[in-house]
Amino acid sequence: MSFAIGMVNLIHWNALVSPNAFKLPPIVNVLAQSPEPSTVQTGPILLAGTLLSLVIIYMASKLVGEICARINLPTVLGELVGGVIIGISALNLLVFTEGGGGSAAWVLQLLQSTAGLTPELTPSVAESLSEVISILSELGVIILLFEIGLESNLNELIRVGPQAAVVAIVGVVVPFAAGTAGLIALFHVATVPAVFAGAALTATSIGITAKVLAELQQLSSSEGQIIIGAAVLDDILGIIVLAVVANLAKTGEVELSNVLYLVVGAAVFLVGSILIGRFLSPYFVSMVNRMQTRGQLLIASLIFAFILAYIGAVIQLEAILGAFAAGLVLAETEKHKEIEEQLLPVADMLVPIFFVVVGAKTDVSVLNPFDPANREGLIIAAFLVVVAIVGKVVTGLTVFGQPDLNRLAIGVGMVPRGEVGLVFAGVGSATGILPKSLEAAIIVMVIFTTFIAPPLLRVVFQKAPASVPEST
Amino acid sequence: MSFAIGMVNLIHWNALVSPNAFKLPPIVNVLAQSPEPSTVQTGPILLAGTLLSLVIIYMASKLVGEICARINLPTVLGELVGGVIIGISALNLLVFTEGGGGSAAWVLQLLQSTAGLTPELTPSVAESLSEVISILSELGVIILLFEIGLESNLNELIRVGPQAAVVAIVGVVVPFAAGTAGLIALFHVATVPAVFAGAALTATSIGITAKVLAELQQLSSSEGQIIIGAAVLDDILGIIVLAVVANLAKTGEVELSNVLYLVVGAAVFLVGSILIGRFLSPYFVSMVNRMQTRGQLLIASLIFAFILAYIGAVIQLEAILGAFAAGLVLAETEKHKEIEEQLLPVADMLVPIFFVVVGAKTDVSVLNPFDPANREGLIIAAFLVVVAIVGKVVTGLTVFGQPDLNRLAIGVGMVPRGEVGLVFAGVGSATGILPKSLEAAIIVMVIFTTFIAPPLLRVVFQKAPASVPEST
Repeated sequence: MSFAIGMVNLIHWNALVSPNAFKLPPIVNVLAQSPEPSTVQTGPILLAGTLLSLVIIYMASKLVGEICARINLPTVLGELVGGVIIGISALNLLVFTEGGGGSAAWVLQLLQSTAGLTPELTPSVAESLSEVISILSELGVIILLFEIGLESNLNELIRVGPQAAVVAIVGVVVPFAAGTAGLIALFHVATVPAVFAGAALTATSIGITAKVLAELQQLSSSEGQIIIGAAVLDDILGIIVLAVVANLAKTGEVELSNVLYLVVGAAVFLVGSILIGRFLSPYFVSMVNRMQTRGQLLIASLIFAFILAYIGAVIQLEAILGAFAAGLVLAETEKHKEIEEQLLPVADMLVPIFFVVVGAKTDVSVLNPFDPANREGLIIAAFLVVVAIVGKVVTGLTVFGQPDLNRLAIGVGMVPRGEVGLVFAGVGSATGILPKSLEAAIIVMVIFTTFIAPPLLRVVFQKAPASVPEST
Repeated sequence: MSFAIGMVNLIHWNALVSPNAFKLPPIVNVLAQSPEPSTVQTGPILLAGTLLSLVIIYMASKLVGEICARINLPTVLGELVGGVIIGISALNLLVFTEGGGGSAAWVLQLLQSTAGLTPELTPSVAESLSEVISILSELGVIILLFEIGLESNLNELIRVGPQAAVVAIVGVVVPFAAGTAGLIALFHVATVPAVFAGAALTATSIGITAKVLAELQQLSSSEGQIIIGAAVLDDILGIIVLAVVANLAKTGEVELSNVLYLVVGAAVFLVGSILIGRFLSPYFVSMVNRMQTRGQLLIASLIFAFILAYIGAVIQLEAILGAFAAGLVLAETEKHKEIEEQLLPVADMLVPIFFVVVGAKTDVSVLNPFDPANREGLIIAAFLVVVAIVGKVVTGLTVFGQPDLNRLAIGVGMVPRGEVGLVFAGVGSATGILPKSLEAAIIVMVIFTTFIAPPLLRVVFQKAPASVPEST
C-alpha cells in the first residue's frame, strides 16, 4: 500500500523539491523509525548534510556574486555578502558549532524532516558537519593561496624594483602601526587582538586592483606597474605578518624573542622553500613528464603544496604560508601555466566555500546601528576603514625619483583588501581570540575598502570606465 | 636560546621531512604543552591530519598507479592496490575508526610527534579525521558517477539497439542470479550479504574495456559497438541494482513489496530525472550563458548534481544514483564537453581518494592463504571470480542475428568490473552488513577480473597489442 504513496512522494521530489516534500513523507518516516535506533549510521546523514550545505554555499555565492558582477563590483564581495546573508547574522542556514547557530540551523531542520536525523543524533551530526565544512573551507583557502603564489612572478617583481618595494613596505608598516596603536590607545583593545586587526589592515588584493587597472587600460603604465609590483610584495609581507600574528593569537603572548623567532622563521621558511624549490624543480618537472597516469601534474603539484602546507602548520606558522610558498616555487617552473589551468576548476569549486564560510561565521548583527550597545563597535569599524584608506593612500607619496607620476593613483590602487583581507579575517576567527565586534569590524573594513576602490580608482585616473567587457 | 635550535629544526623540515624532524622538536614540544590544555583547539590538528592523509593517499595512488600503467594494467587497479598497501591490511597509515585501525594508525602517531596531538585528544581527532576522509572519498565517488553519467550517450545507446540491450540484461541477470544462489546454497551466506555480493558481480567497467578496445583498434567494430553499448546500459542497470541492494542492506530485510518499490522507485527516479532534465536543460544552458562570474558552468553543474545526489540519498536510494542521473541529463546539453573538461581536474583530485580509501578499508589479511582459518573465504573468492568471468562470457552467446560475430570477444569484453565494481564494494562496506571475508572476496574478484580482462581480450581478438601509445 505504501508503494503508491511512495511513488507520489518520489514524483514530488522530482518536481524540483516542492514544499510538500518537506513534510515527513510516509516512506521516509517509516525508514527513519528503524527498529534498532542504536545502530543508526550517521554516515549517510552526514553526507546528505554536506551535499545540502555545499548547495546552499554555491547558491549564495553565485546569486550575490552575479549581482555584484552586474554592478561592476568584485565577485569575491558577492561571495562574502552571500555568506553573511545565509550565515549566523541572518538566515542561519548552515551549522557552525563553535560560534552559536547550533541546532537552530536550517540545514539540520531539513535533515531532520528529510534524512531521518533524530533529535538525539543532532548534536553529534551538527558537530561533524561543522567540522567537515570547516575543513573544506580551509582546503579552499589553501588552494587560493597556492593559486596566488602560482600567479606571482618573482622576476617581474625584481624588475619593477625598489619603488614598488618602498610602496609595499610603507603600505604594510603604516596601516599596521597606526591601526594597532590606535586600537590600543583609543579603544583599549587588548594587545593581541589589536595586533591582529592591525595586521588585517596590511593586505592588498592584487586581483581586484589588477582587474580595475586592466579595465582602465592602465595596467602597463608606470603607476600600474608599481601598484602590481607592490601588491605582489604585499602578499608576501602580509602572509608573513599573518603567520606571525596568528601564532601570537594562539599562544596569547607577545614576547619580543618569540616575535623575532616567528618573523625570521616565516621568512626563512619562505625563502628557504623558494631556494630549495629552485634547486629541486627541474627534478619535479622531469618526474611529472615521465608519469603516465591521468592527472599526474595536478596531483604531483597538490602533493607538493599539501606537504609544505602541513609543514607550515606543524612548525606553528600557517598552512596557507606553505601553500603560498609551494605556489611561488612552481610558478618558476615551465609547467606553471599548465598547473594554473588545471587548478582553476579545483579553485572554482573550493575557494567560494572559504569566502562564503567567512561571511557566514561573522555575526554582523553586533554592528547593527539601531542598537545603542553597538556604538563602540561601529566607531571601531569606522576607525579601521579610515586607517585602511589613509594608511594606503599615503604610501603613494613615498614614491621617489619620478616627479610626474600620479602618486594618488598609486596609493588608491593599494586600498582594496579583497580576498587577502578575508584570509586574515578567517584565520583570526579560527583562533577565537578576536572579540565579535572587532571581527565584524574587520569584515566591514574589508567590504568597504573593496567596494570603494574601483570607483575611486576611476576618479583618480580621471577616466570614464572603459566599455571593455569583463573577462572573469 | 630556543631560537637557534628552532632554526635548525626549520631547516630540517625544509630538507623534505628528514627522519630527525619526527623526534619531538623543542619548539613544538613547548607549544604543545600549552598552559591551558582544555582550550587546545583541535581544528588546526584536524587540518594537518587531513593534509597528511591526502598526501599519503595521493602518493599511494600515484606510486602503484604508475607501476600499473607501465605494465599495461588499468591505473584504477593501481589506486586500489595502493590503498590496500597503505590500509588496515598492511602499513596502516590512515585512520578509520569504524573498522579497527584506530589509534595505531601512523598518521595519528605522526600528528602526536609533530602537531602537538595529545593522547587525550587522539580519539576525538581520530573520529573527526576518519569522518572527513570518508566524506572526501564519498564526494569522490559522487563526482565519479557524475562523470560516468556525463560520458554516457543515450542516443548512441539507442542506436546500437536491441543486441546490446540483450547482452547487458543477460550480463546483469546471470551473474547476479548465479552468484546470489551459489553463495546461499553452497556457502550458507545470509540472504542480504549474498544479494549484495551477487549485485557486485553485475557491473561492467566501460572505461577499462573501451581503453583496451581502442588499443586493439576494435572500438568501431560490431563487437566493440555492442560491448560499449551493453556496458553503458550495464552502468544504468547496475546502479539501479546497487541502489536497491544498498537499501535492503540498510533495512536488513528482503521483502517483495519493498524490492518492487525500490526497483520501480530507482527506475522512476532515473527516467524521471532524465525526462524533466530534458525539459529543463535549455533553461540551464541559457542561465549559465547569462552568468558572468568565474566558474559559473562548473558550479551550476555541481549544484545540479549535488541536489539530485541529496534527493537520491534522502529517498533511501543512493546519492551516487542522483549524481549519475545529473550526469545523464547534462550529457544531452550542448555544454557537456565543456563540463567534462572542467570536471576533469576535480575528478583527478577527488576520485583517487575514493579508490584508495576502498582499498585501505578492506582487510585482505582475512584471505591470507597461509592461515587455514581463511579457507572458506578463499573458496568464496574463487567462486566469485569464476561466476564473474563465466557469467559475463556466456552473455556473448546470446547475441542473435549476426552469425559471423566474435561472440567470445563480446563476452570477454564485459568481464572487467573496474571502478564500478569498486563502487559496489565501497557502498557495501559503508552499510556494514558484509562479513569481512565476503568484502575482501568481492575486492579480490574486482581486482582479478580487471587484471585478467585486458590480456584475455587481446587473445580472443587474436591480435598482438597495438603499439598505440596510451592516452590516459
